[in-house]
Amino acid sequence: MKALYFDGQLSVRDVGQPKPGPGEALIQVVFAGICGTDREILKGYSNFRGILGHEFVGRVVACEDKKWLGKRVVGEINISCGECELCLWGLGRHCAKRTVMGIVNRDGVFAEFVTLPIVNLHEVPKTVSDQAAVFVEPLAAAGEILEQMQIPPGAHVAVIGDGRLGLLVAQVLHHAKAQVTVIGKHGWKLDLARGWGMKVASVDEGEMPARSFSVVVEATGSPTGVDQAFRLIAPRGTVVMKSTFHGRAQFDTAKLVVDEITLLGSRCGDFPRALELLARGRVKVQHLVSRTFPLEAGLEAFEYLESTSCLKVLLAPSPARS
Amino acid sequence: MKALYFDGQLSVRDVGQPKPGPGEALIQVVFAGICGTDREILKGYSNFRGILGHEFVGRVVACEDKKWLGKRVVGEINISCGECELCLWGLGRHCAKRTVMGIVNRDGVFAEFVTLPIVNLHEVPKTVSDQAAVFVEPLAAAGEILEQMQIPPGAHVAVIGDGRLGLLVAQVLHHAKAQVTVIGKHGWKLDLARGWGMKVASVDEGEMPARSFSVVVEATGSPTGVDQAFRLIAPRGTVVMKSTFHGRAQFDTAKLVVDEITLLGSRCGDFPRALELLARGRVKVQHLVSRTFPLEAGLEAFEYLESTSCLKVLLAPSPARS
Repeated sequence: MKALYFDGQLSVRDVGQPKPGPGEALIQVVFAGICGTDREILKGYSNFRGILGHEFVGRVVACEDKKWLGKRVVGEINISCGECELCLWGLGRHCAKRTVMGIVNRDGVFAEFVTLPIVNLHEVPKTVSDQAAVFVEPLAAAGEILEQMQIPPGAHVAVIGDGRLGLLVAQVLHHAKAQVTVIGKHGWKLDLARGWGMKVASVDEGEMPARSFSVVVEATGSPTGVDQAFRLIAPRGTVVMKSTFHGRAQFDTAKLVVDEITLLGSRCGDFPRALELLARGRVKVQHLVSRTFPLEAGLEAFEYLESTSCLKVLLAPSPARS
Repeated sequence: MKALYFDGQLSVRDVGQPKPGPGEALIQVVFAGICGTDREILKGYSNFRGILGHEFVGRVVACEDKKWLGKRVVGEINISCGECELCLWGLGRHCAKRTVMGIVNRDGVFAEFVTLPIVNLHEVPKTVSDQAAVFVEPLAAAGEILEQMQIPPGAHVAVIGDGRLGLLVAQVLHHAKAQVTVIGKHGWKLDLARGWGMKVASVDEGEMPARSFSVVVEATGSPTGVDQAFRLIAPRGTVVMKSTFHGRAQFDTAKLVVDEITLLGSRCGDFPRALELLARGRVKVQHLVSRTFPLEAGLEAFEYLESTSCLKVLLAPSPARS
């Protein structure tokens, strides 16, 4: 099968089709989304070698448990041991032995087929389109914030970054009745947020008032977002870090201590809730897809992402379905 | 009066005795404690100029409200405006207009006399000695952790740093029924913690297991503590930052995000609770005073702190009482 493989260089390769192990399903990938983490992997993040990609929607084509056959599915990306303390506490997403599809020691979804444990699968409701379903993984990650902390209705929340993840986070928090301000660089992306009823601010329009938000979500995907977040956060406020990037960031420890700021790392989240947000139309993703490339044009898709101000770029490993 | 003054250089000076303003008390300082923050100020932290010092016990010698006259007191170090939103929310310690005694725009306690608003004062119970009372400010700061987060009984907590603040934090958390391990460099300081019933570990004895504590308190006063804390903290755990130091620290953002770590800045805390811990003997401070210097020997006291492995160093501005 065709796959987008990274071994220090990214290339489209012919590789063997994976075989589902016990308890696993073979899934034909319909759409896969390119995430900021994929781009960080190309810079060295996670030291990954293999087939990239972890956001997808697909169809089960082989499975021991016949009731999954033909089902349209999305899949959780962490494959845990199921036996360690963290797994037994329900924190399998933090299992030290886990693999992570397309990120840690397990092939990903930029391929015609992928295998995943059945326990990782979630059926996609009919009311959610293929193009929408590919957003379940990042939308679940956005929703993880609300699993980790309480944000009271009316709370002043800034989301720094008007990219794919930022616009999903903003919608999730807006839906949770926070007063969301999206801070970004791109007028047309900010216009989307404005259209959804949020406040927006351009980073170019001068500085926002310091210490003015009780929650700031850093979703720029770059270390520079941390300083901006620290400027905007109110005393005793929480800065949520959503982006994984390769390398280290600096922070002003005195500011953290003196203003008693909480810096909260936040990663993967709950799939069923994300599916429900999409099924009920609470989160809009139809304007978030900038372009779809066939899998064979995967390199071009990454170049497009790097060179343009776009939002989500999809790969379609099965062109007939795109 | 004599005072230990910092204007880029530290020196003992004769300065005018302060006059209490409306609502303020004039306090004769009995003992003052030297804190890590004072040493950071000498390196440039907070860009402070004036009389150093914020930990003290003293006696009220002049005050409009006569019932305070002669009282033995400790005093909260943040002097807030009392009118802004943060003050009205009870977060006066974070008031943007506040001064901070010996740290921000207000003279401190390394002097014969100091003035403070009466609302900042707390009377010291008879059962608490002068030498113990000088620990109220740092002990309150240690207790602030429990105001900010819940630590379940039996939780595995590491305190990195066996210095003054670390040993106070360790005692407060031990009293709150956490399973505390103090990690430090100094055998005799770790012996104190062991004597109080805590586990101890020397940083020189090889590495502690990674990801093994649900809470790690960074109390080393140096940026290097952050990396060690990140290594020890379990997924979804909380790293508490207690030290203010001059400059910035680096952190591994991917670790923060992937392990969903919370980094919690923690500063000043509640004085009455600290006084109660001392009055009931729940926290031991009698072995934490390494040496007492007369105020005139303030420079020598700082040199002693820098050159030896000691714990708390006190200044006695009123030699007759020391």
